[in-house]
Amino acid sequence: MKPLDVLEQSLHKRVLVATRGGRSFRGVLDAFDQHLNLVLSGAEEVVEDVVTPHPGLTMVRGDSVVYISP
Amino acid sequence: MKPLDVLEQSLHKRVLVATRGGRSFRGVLDAFDQHLNLVLSGAEEVVEDVVTPHPGLTMVRGDSVVYISP
Amino acid sequence: MKPLDVLEQSLHKRVLVATRGGRSFRGVLDAFDQHLNLVLSGAEEVVEDVVTPHPGLTMVRGDSVVYISP
Amino acid sequence: MKPLDVLEQSLHKRVLVATRGGRSFRGVLDAFDQHLNLVLSGAEEVVEDVVTPHPGLTMVRGDSVVYISP
Amino acid sequence: MKPLDVLEQSLHKRVLVATRGGRSFRGVLDAFDQHLNLVLSGAEEVVEDVVTPHPGLTMVRGDSVVYISP
Amino acid sequence: MKPLDVLEQSLHKRVLVATRGGRSFRGVLDAFDQHLNLVLSGAEEVVEDVVTPHPGLTMVRGDSVVYISP
Amino acid sequence: MKPLDVLEQSLHKRVLVATRGGRSFRGVLDAFDQHLNLVLSGAEEVVEDVVTPHPGLTMVRGDSVVYISP
Repeated sequence: MKPLDVLEQSLHKRVLVATRGGRSFRGVLDAFDQHLNLVLSGAEEVVEDVVTPHPGLTMVRGDSVVYISP
Repeated sequence: MKPLDVLEQSLHKRVLVATRGGRSFRGVLDAFDQHLNLVLSGAEEVVEDVVTPHPGLTMVRGDSVVYISP
Repeated sequence: MKPLDVLEQSLHKRVLVATRGGRSFRGVLDAFDQHLNLVLSGAEEVVEDVVTPHPGLTMVRGDSVVYISP
Repeated sequence: MKPLDVLEQSLHKRVLVATRGGRSFRGVLDAFDQHLNLVLSGAEEVVEDVVTPHPGLTMVRGDSVVYISP
Repeated sequence: MKPLDVLEQSLHKRVLVATRGGRSFRGVLDAFDQHLNLVLSGAEEVVEDVVTPHPGLTMVRGDSVVYISP
Repeated sequence: MKPLDVLEQSLHKRVLVATRGGRSFRGVLDAFDQHLNLVLSGAEEVVEDVVTPHPGLTMVRGDSVVYISP
Repeated sequence: MKPLDVLEQSLHKRVLVATRGGRSFRGVLDAFDQHLNLVLSGAEEVVEDVVTPHPGLTMVRGDSVVYISP
């Protein structure tokens, strides 16, 4: 089993994505590619306890991702 | 469905683009490539609540992009 | 013996993973690939003595990893 | 239309180039390549409101570029 | 003689490894690859004079390495 | 005309090279390659108004370069 | 003449190597490769006027190098 296979299992489920610069996102993982570019639907962005909703689909660049967890 | 396919659906629509260094842009997504280089028309740049309009076409380097949302 | 062979020996064992930005994780190493993307199960994230449990599987992007130890 | 095609349309026109580290340049775009290495003629560099003129041709490394706008 | 040949001579000897972010490690170099991923046994990590022992094998990601010395 | 062709025209002329981290160099451009690795002869390094002369040939790593101007 | 040819001329001579993060090294250049990985013998490391001698051979990772001068 490889890391990307594990990510496959998170498809269409809610995930927490932490990115560089102290940002994080919560949303449903709708798509990803081998660069870890991610698409989240109904994402909420959190920066220092400030929550910003992003209706629709948010694409997070893989380069910015630190970790992805349920 | 892959992340870049999702971005395809945002073509010619208004998007929010956050970049490293605390900058963000709002504008119409006119073009992108596989490196996530983006072209925005009628973009407004926001840095710490200061808004700078960029008439015409702004090209944002993919390397700088953190996320793209509607 | 190569570094990735050593990592192979840590599969299914508890590891400590330090990442850039002062974060670290403790959890069981369930998978990894040649980019050092890692999957940890039952991970605890530690940032400045604040511990956040991440039930389920956490995927840590290889680019963020500084070191992995038992 | 791809981002680099858009940049093609800015050739020989005045552009604003923002780079990492809070620097920006204004000048005429005389050349660029696929790495976004740029050549500006008659460039002015701006760092925190201090303007430094660079007579002749300035080459800006693509890696440093954040965005290019008219 | 190439740098990696020199590193070959340090195999199974104690080395000092400095990484980005002000960390350093002392331990026996058990393995390395062409990306400078390293395996240290019996490593001690030093950050601002605080020493943390890492029993067993520590894998340091090559991207983080600044220098390696005896 | 491509950016590296423009750099060709600066060969054996005095240039100003700004690098990341607030450093700059003045010297005669004696050589460069496609990575923008540069060789300067008789370079002066400037960091916050402190000038350090580097007699002989200084090689600046391309990765560090922000811009090169006359 | 290319930058790496120039570096060839510094082989077995004393050089000053500045790296990211405000570190520098003085030592004899014993080897290098095309990534600018360097081997210095009898190196002294300088960080904010604190000098640390590194007897034997120090390998500096090319990615960290900013410049090399005599």
